[in-house]
Amino acid sequence: MKIITFGEVMLRLSPPGVERFAQTDTLTMHFGGTEANVAVSLTQLGLQAAHVTRFPDHALGRAAAGYLRRYNVDTQHIRFGDGRLGLYFLETGAGSRASQIIYDRVNSAFSRIQPDDINWETVLQGASWFHWTGITPALSQGAADCLLAGIQAANQLGVPVSGDIVYRSNLWQYGRPPQEIMPALTEGCTLVLGSKALFSELYGVVGSTFQESGRALMERFPKVKYVTDTKRNSISASHNQLSAKLFDGTTVHKSRVYDIQPIVDRIGTGDAYIAGLIYGLLTFDNLQQAVDFGAAASALKHTIPGDVNLATVAEVQTLASGDSSGKLKR
Amino acid sequence: MKIITFGEVMLRLSPPGVERFAQTDTLTMHFGGTEANVAVSLTQLGLQAAHVTRFPDHALGRAAAGYLRRYNVDTQHIRFGDGRLGLYFLETGAGSRASQIIYDRVNSAFSRIQPDDINWETVLQGASWFHWTGITPALSQGAADCLLAGIQAANQLGVPVSGDIVYRSNLWQYGRPPQEIMPALTEGCTLVLGSKALFSELYGVVGSTFQESGRALMERFPKVKYVTDTKRNSISASHNQLSAKLFDGTTVHKSRVYDIQPIVDRIGTGDAYIAGLIYGLLTFDNLQQAVDFGAAASALKHTIPGDVNLATVAEVQTLASGDSSGKLKR
Amino acid sequence: MKIITFGEVMLRLSPPGVERFAQTDTLTMHFGGTEANVAVSLTQLGLQAAHVTRFPDHALGRAAAGYLRRYNVDTQHIRFGDGRLGLYFLETGAGSRASQIIYDRVNSAFSRIQPDDINWETVLQGASWFHWTGITPALSQGAADCLLAGIQAANQLGVPVSGDIVYRSNLWQYGRPPQEIMPALTEGCTLVLGSKALFSELYGVVGSTFQESGRALMERFPKVKYVTDTKRNSISASHNQLSAKLFDGTTVHKSRVYDIQPIVDRIGTGDAYIAGLIYGLLTFDNLQQAVDFGAAASALKHTIPGDVNLATVAEVQTLASGDSSGKLKR
Amino acid sequence: MKIITFGEVMLRLSPPGVERFAQTDTLTMHFGGTEANVAVSLTQLGLQAAHVTRFPDHALGRAAAGYLRRYNVDTQHIRFGDGRLGLYFLETGAGSRASQIIYDRVNSAFSRIQPDDINWETVLQGASWFHWTGITPALSQGAADCLLAGIQAANQLGVPVSGDIVYRSNLWQYGRPPQEIMPALTEGCTLVLGSKALFSELYGVVGSTFQESGRALMERFPKVKYVTDTKRNSISASHNQLSAKLFDGTTVHKSRVYDIQPIVDRIGTGDAYIAGLIYGLLTFDNLQQAVDFGAAASALKHTIPGDVNLATVAEVQTLASGDSSGKLKR
Amino acid sequence: MKIITFGEVMLRLSPPGVERFAQTDTLTMHFGGTEANVAVSLTQLGLQAAHVTRFPDHALGRAAAGYLRRYNVDTQHIRFGDGRLGLYFLETGAGSRASQIIYDRVNSAFSRIQPDDINWETVLQGASWFHWTGITPALSQGAADCLLAGIQAANQLGVPVSGDIVYRSNLWQYGRPPQEIMPALTEGCTLVLGSKALFSELYGVVGSTFQESGRALMERFPKVKYVTDTKRNSISASHNQLSAKLFDGTTVHKSRVYDIQPIVDRIGTGDAYIAGLIYGLLTFDNLQQAVDFGAAASALKHTIPGDVNLATVAEVQTLASGDSSGKLKR
Amino acid sequence: MKIITFGEVMLRLSPPGVERFAQTDTLTMHFGGTEANVAVSLTQLGLQAAHVTRFPDHALGRAAAGYLRRYNVDTQHIRFGDGRLGLYFLETGAGSRASQIIYDRVNSAFSRIQPDDINWETVLQGASWFHWTGITPALSQGAADCLLAGIQAANQLGVPVSGDIVYRSNLWQYGRPPQEIMPALTEGCTLVLGSKALFSELYGVVGSTFQESGRALMERFPKVKYVTDTKRNSISASHNQLSAKLFDGTTVHKSRVYDIQPIVDRIGTGDAYIAGLIYGLLTFDNLQQAVDFGAAASALKHTIPGDVNLATVAEVQTLASGDSSGKLKR
Repeated sequence: MKIITFGEVMLRLSPPGVERFAQTDTLTMHFGGTEANVAVSLTQLGLQAAHVTRFPDHALGRAAAGYLRRYNVDTQHIRFGDGRLGLYFLETGAGSRASQIIYDRVNSAFSRIQPDDINWETVLQGASWFHWTGITPALSQGAADCLLAGIQAANQLGVPVSGDIVYRSNLWQYGRPPQEIMPALTEGCTLVLGSKALFSELYGVVGSTFQESGRALMERFPKVKYVTDTKRNSISASHNQLSAKLFDGTTVHKSRVYDIQPIVDRIGTGDAYIAGLIYGLLTFDNLQQAVDFGAAASALKHTIPGDVNLATVAEVQTLASGDSSGKLKR
Repeated sequence: MKIITFGEVMLRLSPPGVERFAQTDTLTMHFGGTEANVAVSLTQLGLQAAHVTRFPDHALGRAAAGYLRRYNVDTQHIRFGDGRLGLYFLETGAGSRASQIIYDRVNSAFSRIQPDDINWETVLQGASWFHWTGITPALSQGAADCLLAGIQAANQLGVPVSGDIVYRSNLWQYGRPPQEIMPALTEGCTLVLGSKALFSELYGVVGSTFQESGRALMERFPKVKYVTDTKRNSISASHNQLSAKLFDGTTVHKSRVYDIQPIVDRIGTGDAYIAGLIYGLLTFDNLQQAVDFGAAASALKHTIPGDVNLATVAEVQTLASGDSSGKLKR
Repeated sequence: MKIITFGEVMLRLSPPGVERFAQTDTLTMHFGGTEANVAVSLTQLGLQAAHVTRFPDHALGRAAAGYLRRYNVDTQHIRFGDGRLGLYFLETGAGSRASQIIYDRVNSAFSRIQPDDINWETVLQGASWFHWTGITPALSQGAADCLLAGIQAANQLGVPVSGDIVYRSNLWQYGRPPQEIMPALTEGCTLVLGSKALFSELYGVVGSTFQESGRALMERFPKVKYVTDTKRNSISASHNQLSAKLFDGTTVHKSRVYDIQPIVDRIGTGDAYIAGLIYGLLTFDNLQQAVDFGAAASALKHTIPGDVNLATVAEVQTLASGDSSGKLKR
Repeated sequence: MKIITFGEVMLRLSPPGVERFAQTDTLTMHFGGTEANVAVSLTQLGLQAAHVTRFPDHALGRAAAGYLRRYNVDTQHIRFGDGRLGLYFLETGAGSRASQIIYDRVNSAFSRIQPDDINWETVLQGASWFHWTGITPALSQGAADCLLAGIQAANQLGVPVSGDIVYRSNLWQYGRPPQEIMPALTEGCTLVLGSKALFSELYGVVGSTFQESGRALMERFPKVKYVTDTKRNSISASHNQLSAKLFDGTTVHKSRVYDIQPIVDRIGTGDAYIAGLIYGLLTFDNLQQAVDFGAAASALKHTIPGDVNLATVAEVQTLASGDSSGKLKR
Repeated sequence: MKIITFGEVMLRLSPPGVERFAQTDTLTMHFGGTEANVAVSLTQLGLQAAHVTRFPDHALGRAAAGYLRRYNVDTQHIRFGDGRLGLYFLETGAGSRASQIIYDRVNSAFSRIQPDDINWETVLQGASWFHWTGITPALSQGAADCLLAGIQAANQLGVPVSGDIVYRSNLWQYGRPPQEIMPALTEGCTLVLGSKALFSELYGVVGSTFQESGRALMERFPKVKYVTDTKRNSISASHNQLSAKLFDGTTVHKSRVYDIQPIVDRIGTGDAYIAGLIYGLLTFDNLQQAVDFGAAASALKHTIPGDVNLATVAEVQTLASGDSSGKLKR
Repeated sequence: MKIITFGEVMLRLSPPGVERFAQTDTLTMHFGGTEANVAVSLTQLGLQAAHVTRFPDHALGRAAAGYLRRYNVDTQHIRFGDGRLGLYFLETGAGSRASQIIYDRVNSAFSRIQPDDINWETVLQGASWFHWTGITPALSQGAADCLLAGIQAANQLGVPVSGDIVYRSNLWQYGRPPQEIMPALTEGCTLVLGSKALFSELYGVVGSTFQESGRALMERFPKVKYVTDTKRNSISASHNQLSAKLFDGTTVHKSRVYDIQPIVDRIGTGDAYIAGLIYGLLTFDNLQQAVDFGAAASALKHTIPGDVNLATVAEVQTLASGDSSGKLKR
């Protein structure tokens, strides 16, 4: 089974440990982007995945592709061209001090992508799933158009589509509001990750509970079969509680609540959830098992440095089955 | 607003992470000293600060001054001359293992300072505050004399003075007991940081509660308007609880209790408190707000590597207002 | 007092911090082996210790010996010859992610040891204690034979013997089951570290409680005067609870339960217990004090990077006496 | 004596040692920009210097200012505002492998500077020298305009002006050719660093030798009293030969040729030359001595990591006087 | 064009910089093996390459495959199974101190490979070249057999074959002498890398010059069209001189002599030569150009840390064309 | 054969690579002292050595002893007591930039040593050689007295004595000139390392050549049988030429001249020479061979980080025999 993901990949630069920007003289490199993070999570779980993006045609762009390949992601559909490599600077917090990010992604090579750059029929041939997020259409008209073409191709080829409809208002600088762009993209989805509040803000879809709101979304977008979301209780930057739920039109399947302490790296934990859920939907015939697997994958990601989840199926299943003892494996 | 601080700055050398001295082959450099730590905290909060000290006239002494400047402290009044750079070696503990310090500060360039080295009228001109601690008069007669001259100049110029009357008995090697030296220094203070026990030991001032003891101190030293102290409950080297109180002659203003876990760096957390309190007294017209700000600043310092508090006003206010969730800031 | 230990020492290679094998480009070196870990713990507690082993005759073998000497272990009885240096790769976990070890120790120089390589009469002359574990006889017939010769020599010289009868089924590849080998080794022991389950599996000795099982063991092996074990409650890879008990044929002496958070390094914590216990038995005339000292030593080891316990007597006693506050020592 | 410099400062990110971009997971941080490099060189030589620039108003922009302060540069005239921090990625070569730079500086906060942002009369009050380079007017119309205002203010205040007229054709993207912009800037210069070829390309000023070309430049721009240039023979990325010459309208003063091996860091060596020359012109009454000092300063910079020259006057003079033995100083 | 390589890949562990094994506490990881090094060199030159090997089925084996993928090598034909990961420990020398290697590769997963593990017809389908070395048949009968099957399949499919007939006498432990094994392997070669001395030792083929010896080899093995070798003059561990020659049955084409100083990493420089030569043979229609390209590639590899050559075509061509100036590329 | 050395050991702290003090945030630890460096060199050459010194009784003092033990030096005669650990800060230069040292050794635990602290009869029992240097008597009267007692004991026990009569005028602060102290120490020497100039300055012994001066020294101090010295031509901090000579009263034996490039670490290269020479005198029956061995050992030390020479006999012999090719050893 092969999953296709599409979106920007940035170079992440962080001070070692919990140093502040003001005091560091070294930066640790990772590469990440919400959709590529999903691709890496899935390869680590033993599935195949290809990521589609556009990088600058220089040594750092090639290093970014190398990073994805290292973790077994197929990079054959990546395009190289003009523009810069998107960056983000991450300062990792601890306890009552929050982590903080300085984004530096404007004018990236990815934001210059155009629909013609990608032959979606080729890319999606034989794929088992296609995943996108609300970051991509926020970056440029070209990215939004290219994504729409991809979703439509997936629909035509019968490839299930998931959309994490995350909304960041400080992106969306190219002149179109999300309310104009997002509905057509959501239209083609099988699975939507989002909250009641987002459904209302982006689509005007309302409901008093997650279940009602989800049902209303399914009415508005009939291809949607699953609605999912995570819930995080942030006790401190080092201690969170996390759970997930999945609504299938009939029942809300809830995972147990994971108590996560300490937090090594908070970035990409939502992506780890959706990757775990996709794995579960493709592998198990049981929705409860799928949401449990996704939530456990997300919990494990908090213990792994970098944006991507390097947990294995065995590790996720151990935790999903209730064993959080972390006993040494020899 | 500009704050003047006076005291020794040492090179701090620590093994990486929580390694022990016995096993390390590398040492991480920071510079720190209780009074300079206050100066750096204040510049990070957006005020101006100048630190007055004396360094050896070699590359390491100049590097020490560079460290202060990096964090925006005015170093124009620093003197360079003979003597060595004071050092301390810090091994950071974890859990039930305590951190430990090996001091190596005898015969430092600072301990050779003489009153004539500093023209206090120039230094204090236009200053909003002057801060000293009980470490300085413990180091040498020259340091004690120079400090007294500074306090007296501040009094003449109407600059408020704070004294952290910390008492370390293993210093005080030059032949005078603190009981002979400290009263004249405390005489000139507006604000005193100390405990009942210290008030009794150093000045023979007694009282059965913090309030009574504080009131007795104010009677003995009529310039003193505020008495303050912190309270720490040490559950482990990685987990502390901290609160502060401020007595204004009438009321004891108490901060809430901060639960601090994990502790990244315990050093300088008291200095972060006094800096936050000075910021509060200079900025707010509300004593409760000032002590809350100071305690939150101190709590945040526990998450920052090095001696100095690099927290911003916004971060301190978030925590002081009760939000310790540490949520990622994008 | 001089303690003799015997067993393999491996080069341990671990990614920095909590990185995974998949993502690291650097490995941190330590050397360790359960018996040598005991020797180092004891030298740090101020006793003398010599470790007996066999290393490859190349720069890495000599570096391993240098590591032991750095921590004051006498290496004069170490032999150098053919074979490779045993290795293990350790990935350190956090929270719900377990640490994991990849062993690479087959065909080590130690596994090729033969009884003639060691003159036990010389080695044990004047020794106060001899310690071995169940790892050694699992490695090769030569190692098992050499160990038996050592135990018998200790018995003849009146040197007390402790055996940690740890059983790892994936070792024991040379064709003899542990049930054939272990009884003769256990025969010579004064102190045995093991669980009811092990006593049953290895010797067919059963009992419904630790006390009964221990008494049965003493009947089977009359030289055994003490039976001991630790109990670990693994809440997560970062949070454990630990206690120990010691049975002297009459009474079970139990330590208090240590709450250990965070865990810096879990490896060698059992070895730290047995070293602390041996120290206690040799130094105190009080079994309760000895077991308390051992358990506190083990708790402290969790805060120290590497396989070996670098805690001092003063640190262990502080914790054993109930002070886990981790207060900064200046 | 205080020197004022004006220009962009970038965050430089480089793999450790001579690693390639393709293989590194860590980047070392420095900050640099040709004009700020001159300012730092001069403070290390004991003069005062202030750098004028514009940084983004976030933690990295403030870190950049901290970097300059650490090396004693006055940052009070720096402005903070919108835009990003300019970056460049440097891969350091060795032997026959060239170093290479990936610039990522478009849309920097500096490029958005406007003449109104800087009050040049205040900045230049009491200054002894003003230095600019051809990078600044290449970045944006605002930067060119602001620079012109600065040069004119310097001329009015009688502050000598030096211009390094470096020309990088891949900059100059805002629609004006350098031939339109550079003459007015050069008009106000006392000292020009450039080659015959550049004089011809930028101003149409020709001459068959450095001397003739320099004389023609002085005729075209009568304020110019000195023309200078360096000559580099690049044997490999690790081995260069360097010399400098200074023409005063009458005589060409030539330094000796420095054989430089190994090269630690090639970046900023030209800036080190101009800083050394400015130091010489301000301090010595001998042009030969000045050009010798500049060339020796540049040679020393090749041994120092980062963009800025941290050599002292004593070190430069030792080398300028012909002692390149590098003998240990105790 | 796609090149297939076959052979063992080891984890290389080296102290940082030029530290000795005796003093280091950290090891830097690379992965390398003579044949895989060729594959990586070729992908960096823009060709496609797949490496065939067998790794242990654990996290380190997967990390090894990730390393190859990072550098764009196709890993789909790699097998995972029992056995350990081959290792080598490299201490890098300098000046008159030689680098030294401690091999630890016995019983590797690769040495357990069997002919049935690889379907050579599939692997070699559409390939442009197949490369092997004399290390592989030295490791085990299975490896030798599997290699022979590969060469024969290449011959059947008309894929050119190159063999680097390197002979290490301390390998070849499985009971067959190289003289029994090597001829059949060499039989299928188009290109042979080796010296006169080796031709004599392995095949009894003699000649008084490289040309005569090469001609004799071609008579013995009629498929061989090219014989090549490099010549190294080792002035010190930091300074070598290198050239190459290629004999085509008629003419000996000689590269110029490269003076290489400093040497960053000597390992893999021979592999870089053969990769450059293969690139040249596949791309140019000029043998002189091919041998020049190979020698320049090898020279450049000496400046790159790790086993693999990360030089680009443009870099190699610059050097091959005689420009060794190493001038900064912006 | 066991060699005894006596003198101070300091903690050496250096920035990584060739960074300057002004820019570093990390320091690398080594321990060293001229006499202890000799001891370590000798153990690495396979002889036994014990170092006698006095350390502070805290974790860093114990770490210093651990450092010596790691390299196989017997530390049983080391005393622990009051006083601080001597330090020196080393900045490593390159090319035309000199390395520089900031000493911080006043008031060290060693300088407080007294003759009663060491029982020289015990220490020297069975020793083959005793080595001291002119640093020790410069530090304090106690150190000078203790050294004299050691030399006299050696003389009584018939143990040969070598003295490196290095003279640093900035030491010698305790009120006695070296001319008063040194003669009695030199009196007991078998071998003296020093120059004509030193012989004249310290003892008033003159001669127009090394040979004549040496002969005059032997007349003044009849126990002296050998006089030796090294000659260094410092081309740059990265390139030196070195040779040695040994006069036996009859003949001057000269080593060849070693061309040393690059220099990794210049510190301790003189100590490596004397260690190599002592090894040669104790092992060979040929003075030429001994001085060759010493000079080659010194040349090799320049390639090894830290104060101590970690070269092996085989490595020294390879170089002494004229092979400086640095060819990779597999």
